[in-house]
Amino acid sequence: MALKARLPLPLLLFSLLFVTAALALPKEDPELKKCKHKCRDERQFDEQQRRDCKRSCEEKARERQQEGGNGSEESYGEEENPYVFEDEHFESRVKTEEGRVQVLENFAKRSKLLSGIENFRLAILEANPHTFISPAHFDAELVLFVAKGRATITMVREERRESFNVEHGDIIRIPAGTPVYMINRDENEKLFIVKILQPVSAPGHFEAFYGAGGEDPESFYRAFSWEVLEAALKVRREQLEKVFGEQSKGSIVKASREKIMALSKHEEGPPRIWPFGGESRGPINLFHKHPSQSNQFGRLYEAHPDDHRQLQDLDLMVSFANITKGSMAGPYYNSRATKISVVVEGEGFFEMACPHLSSSSGSYQKVSARLRRGVVFVAPAGHPVAVIASQNNNLQVLCFEVNAHGNSRFPLAGKGNIVNEFEREAKELAFNLPSREVERIFKNQDQAFFFPGPNKQQEEGDRGGRAFE
Amino acid sequence: MALKARLPLPLLLFSLLFVTAALALPKEDPELKKCKHKCRDERQFDEQQRRDCKRSCEEKARERQQEGGNGSEESYGEEENPYVFEDEHFESRVKTEEGRVQVLENFAKRSKLLSGIENFRLAILEANPHTFISPAHFDAELVLFVAKGRATITMVREERRESFNVEHGDIIRIPAGTPVYMINRDENEKLFIVKILQPVSAPGHFEAFYGAGGEDPESFYRAFSWEVLEAALKVRREQLEKVFGEQSKGSIVKASREKIMALSKHEEGPPRIWPFGGESRGPINLFHKHPSQSNQFGRLYEAHPDDHRQLQDLDLMVSFANITKGSMAGPYYNSRATKISVVVEGEGFFEMACPHLSSSSGSYQKVSARLRRGVVFVAPAGHPVAVIASQNNNLQVLCFEVNAHGNSRFPLAGKGNIVNEFEREAKELAFNLPSREVERIFKNQDQAFFFPGPNKQQEEGDRGGRAFE
Amino acid sequence: MALKARLPLPLLLFSLLFVTAALALPKEDPELKKCKHKCRDERQFDEQQRRDCKRSCEEKARERQQEGGNGSEESYGEEENPYVFEDEHFESRVKTEEGRVQVLENFAKRSKLLSGIENFRLAILEANPHTFISPAHFDAELVLFVAKGRATITMVREERRESFNVEHGDIIRIPAGTPVYMINRDENEKLFIVKILQPVSAPGHFEAFYGAGGEDPESFYRAFSWEVLEAALKVRREQLEKVFGEQSKGSIVKASREKIMALSKHEEGPPRIWPFGGESRGPINLFHKHPSQSNQFGRLYEAHPDDHRQLQDLDLMVSFANITKGSMAGPYYNSRATKISVVVEGEGFFEMACPHLSSSSGSYQKVSARLRRGVVFVAPAGHPVAVIASQNNNLQVLCFEVNAHGNSRFPLAGKGNIVNEFEREAKELAFNLPSREVERIFKNQDQAFFFPGPNKQQEEGDRGGRAFE
Ligand SMILES: [Cu+2]
Ligand SMILES: [Cu+2]
Ligand SMILES: [Cu+2]
Repeated sequence: MALKARLPLPLLLFSLLFVTAALALPKEDPELKKCKHKCRDERQFDEQQRRDCKRSCEEKARERQQEGGNGSEESYGEEENPYVFEDEHFESRVKTEEGRVQVLENFAKRSKLLSGIENFRLAILEANPHTFISPAHFDAELVLFVAKGRATITMVREERRESFNVEHGDIIRIPAGTPVYMINRDENEKLFIVKILQPVSAPGHFEAFYGAGGEDPESFYRAFSWEVLEAALKVRREQLEKVFGEQSKGSIVKASREKIMALSKHEEGPPRIWPFGGESRGPINLFHKHPSQSNQFGRLYEAHPDDHRQLQDLDLMVSFANITKGSMAGPYYNSRATKISVVVEGEGFFEMACPHLSSSSGSYQKVSARLRRGVVFVAPAGHPVAVIASQNNNLQVLCFEVNAHGNSRFPLAGKGNIVNEFEREAKELAFNLPSREVERIFKNQDQAFFFPGPNKQQEEGDRGGRAFE
Repeated sequence: MALKARLPLPLLLFSLLFVTAALALPKEDPELKKCKHKCRDERQFDEQQRRDCKRSCEEKARERQQEGGNGSEESYGEEENPYVFEDEHFESRVKTEEGRVQVLENFAKRSKLLSGIENFRLAILEANPHTFISPAHFDAELVLFVAKGRATITMVREERRESFNVEHGDIIRIPAGTPVYMINRDENEKLFIVKILQPVSAPGHFEAFYGAGGEDPESFYRAFSWEVLEAALKVRREQLEKVFGEQSKGSIVKASREKIMALSKHEEGPPRIWPFGGESRGPINLFHKHPSQSNQFGRLYEAHPDDHRQLQDLDLMVSFANITKGSMAGPYYNSRATKISVVVEGEGFFEMACPHLSSSSGSYQKVSARLRRGVVFVAPAGHPVAVIASQNNNLQVLCFEVNAHGNSRFPLAGKGNIVNEFEREAKELAFNLPSREVERIFKNQDQAFFFPGPNKQQEEGDRGGRAFE
Repeated sequence: MALKARLPLPLLLFSLLFVTAALALPKEDPELKKCKHKCRDERQFDEQQRRDCKRSCEEKARERQQEGGNGSEESYGEEENPYVFEDEHFESRVKTEEGRVQVLENFAKRSKLLSGIENFRLAILEANPHTFISPAHFDAELVLFVAKGRATITMVREERRESFNVEHGDIIRIPAGTPVYMINRDENEKLFIVKILQPVSAPGHFEAFYGAGGEDPESFYRAFSWEVLEAALKVRREQLEKVFGEQSKGSIVKASREKIMALSKHEEGPPRIWPFGGESRGPINLFHKHPSQSNQFGRLYEAHPDDHRQLQDLDLMVSFANITKGSMAGPYYNSRATKISVVVEGEGFFEMACPHLSSSSGSYQKVSARLRRGVVFVAPAGHPVAVIASQNNNLQVLCFEVNAHGNSRFPLAGKGNIVNEFEREAKELAFNLPSREVERIFKNQDQAFFFPGPNKQQEEGDRGGRAFE
């Protein structure tokens, strides 16, 4: 099994799985509905015959779909799926020889279905080793997550300065308008920071304001007339021209080892754990927290706004799921929160049930997409979702959950799944089946949240691949 | 009088009243304005002559209006009135042999004037005796009001279940995402539940998510690929196909007496009155509360968000007005709240002053509509409104008031009406009349909020019908 | 110098300054960018040569711009600047012989860039001496600032009345829906009141509801049918017609000295300083507060929502800047708040750096406009801004800051300016210059917030006008 689980074969299986998954339930086929209704209305049929009848309907539907090339479900999954964002949905706002900042398009511009999170924006900063990222302030509240590397982040507060050394797993809040600069203090490793921004001025739009700088990044001081600057700073124009004319290498520049050492040597902020429960503003390390879910199939780390002042006014939870290779998370749904997920490492896929994209009211469209590093996907409140890691690598996903206060995660499989909570009679009435048959389905899985994934389970149970023919 | 107050005659009077009401003040007539200005500018006229002159202007205007068929005021009242919703403004989301769910269109889609309540939706559930309403969760906060019948409502909380027996007058809060199912536990009476929903994800839109079920209601489990489901639930596909293939009778189904007994026999939630003032989540019965207004002309029951945690985060007041036949409520206005009213029983009409629909700035358009069971009408903040019951039946109106915190009701007639509060000099300056004449008008009615209605008063005072010529 | 600072010459200089300011940095010129890039890439150049090269690029660009008539920057500053509002952006809602109410257009209608403040509206009331402003309620929360004159304001609360004598500098809150009337109690001086409104019903729109009145202002009672009014008020139609037919002089009318005396003689509200820190609702006088910034160049008075309950739910700060003639305020920026400024007295100009209006991403457009009485200008969060008074008069500016909670003002010049807070190495990396050169610029000005303005400084330093050639 260990052998089978490695190299080309699993990858192949994985691709196959994906294709068959997309073909599994061609729901929007009107012929299929009709066909099944006939099976149901056929009075002479017993239960077993009825089921066979329906299954043959599905076979036929599947054939029809394959003949017609890519069926409509496939096209949803690939092209009309507004919940998935890839490279082409990012725009470069900063690009220098030493790094870049990529900003994800406005969610609401992509689809009205995402207008609930329209005032959150996502950005990714990459910076080479030993670089300096120029001071700027933003007309947005910011939360940064250090996905990779080691940085020193300095904020200018009113009349003082705070610096923090941060590393992989650290979350740090930058209040709107705060001047901030940072360094990648590592000599070898690139720095990756994922930012979520909540604009405070023009809803859904934010801007960076560089004060220090010259031509590139252009300093906003240069937008004032020389006369006003001369008076305000009490210096002559020639001096001003010089100071605002030198920088032209952009907002991410190489820094000497000495400067890096100087800028990273001391943390000057308040201690990370504030002694009297007061206003801690330092970073939170997600990985130093006890995982809220943990078994051999995965781990979930969560920073909740009820526990962390820095996330409270944004009503934002930051979490990180590390799904073991060959395993999966969910299906489950969030009761109130909409979850924005960023794939940090690994690959896999996700599936989600969406009533909005369904062509017929009262049914659910499967939304799915392949996941790989850098892909962003969104699961709105109420939508059942499952995330599956590939056989090859752990799938690591950073999540921002908007509307976190009062949110609950309702499991749809495993321990505590909602169907298990129904009364016996409710199960019978809801499923139109004896309750023991319902329980046979919903009480079998005894893990919680993280489960063995499709392929792995197949191998464990040795059911010979039939499920993936 | 008792005799007169019954049968055809009052009905006829009622209709007449309605027509004359609609004709009373043809305000948007530019000719009328001109004519009255002439009366005013005629210097030789004394006060009495001026009034006579104006009255004759109004007569002429009325004639003009009648010649031209339905005047523009009439057409507002009937067709262009965005504040009134009838059958055609509801959409069926669920329809089975045993019941249905009707959802009112989005308020903001009807008119930009209602965009202040655009994130509230209204729905009405009807279910036959002894029926089961399938488990579902919603991407919306819900408040239910039992308008008729007796139900048992069960919610799945995290790792436990709560059931409540509810009846006429009960208000119950269902947090967003909570799986909920219910039964009509009455053997004979239909169940009517009015729902107000506040979507949490896509603003102004909500969806129902049925997990339990099969083909109809379709289970959202079916949107996942069989492979993912097999792995998550640890069962084989054939079993899955069976459990998610049986239910095809829809989300409202007949239930046996035994199942109804089993599902209704015990309340399993926390007590309704929580002993330590803590987080009570049980139902509130509106009719067990002391009425906030009460006299022989009507009664008003209110559940305020300041008193009930369940309504606090929605900033929603639920109230119920029972207006005695032949009586009326108001005129009054809400200072901050916008009131969504649903007629539960009886008939009558309402009148409202609206500056938005007026064709000339600085004046007010009369908005009015006949009321009968199922009609929904909206009175935005600040808008003076009166609701009048017919001579035949009490008019019973369920109200949801959005933006309830800090709201005051300002009476425009009877005890404590705003004009009575003005200083003597303010009355004189505002009305351009001696204050005793102003007081003669505003101090005569000594009832509060509920008053004898138009016809009734006429009979009581024996003023011979002149007012309704 | 005293001589020079007076009369035509400074005015001329002022105009010239304005024109050159507008021409100072023709940033959107693509030729200029190219030209400067060449200077930078010229390897044989030393620092000084490079600067000379760039300067000659700028000269050429300036010439190109002058040839082409009004350059595009000029047109921004004058015509396409969505941050400045003058007479033509106000609409008259009330206009009588004795006064008027002017309402500023909806901010968001002017520009999407202002949609963050779209639910605030601004209005200005002017009333002649000894006048009465009729009772009305609004579907909006109101904050009034008495910019000039002496008034008595009366509000009708539930079942009682509150009156306050107010004067220049008083801020008073009127809750939504509260009936309010007022008098100009001064015999000689006009009353000017600036209102900021936050609509509670239709977002961005508000209406006045006049109950007392007749034809002009029309009473909203007249929108009801006579039958309903007769029943509600328990009076006959003839009486109603009389009481609602007399007033025709509009909502601002002359009042006799006796009535003014009667209406102004007593304050009936709670004391202004509430003894137990409770719910004070009386006026706040801005000028009785200790100025938060004060030197010979100006004074700043602030009423913060954290200190004043009346401003808390609106999250609104009210402030007033009195900039000494020939002086300036800023440059600085607000971290979260968007500032709406109304020029109350004097003249001058403002400059602001805006990334939104810039034609190329990553640079800042100078936004500027001449200021005089009645001009309104908006500085969104994050935008660096400076306000400069003319040589002739103090510039007095009333400001409403929306989103005030958690806002900080970050100075860009003088004491505590952000650049001074950077570490030495950060200054060097950001400006690409030795830190002592950076400090020479940013440590020279030792005043805070208010500084000597452009012309004044020139004279003081006797630098011979070269800067304003
Ligand atoms: Cu969806
Ligand atoms: Cu209206
Ligand atoms: Cu801008």
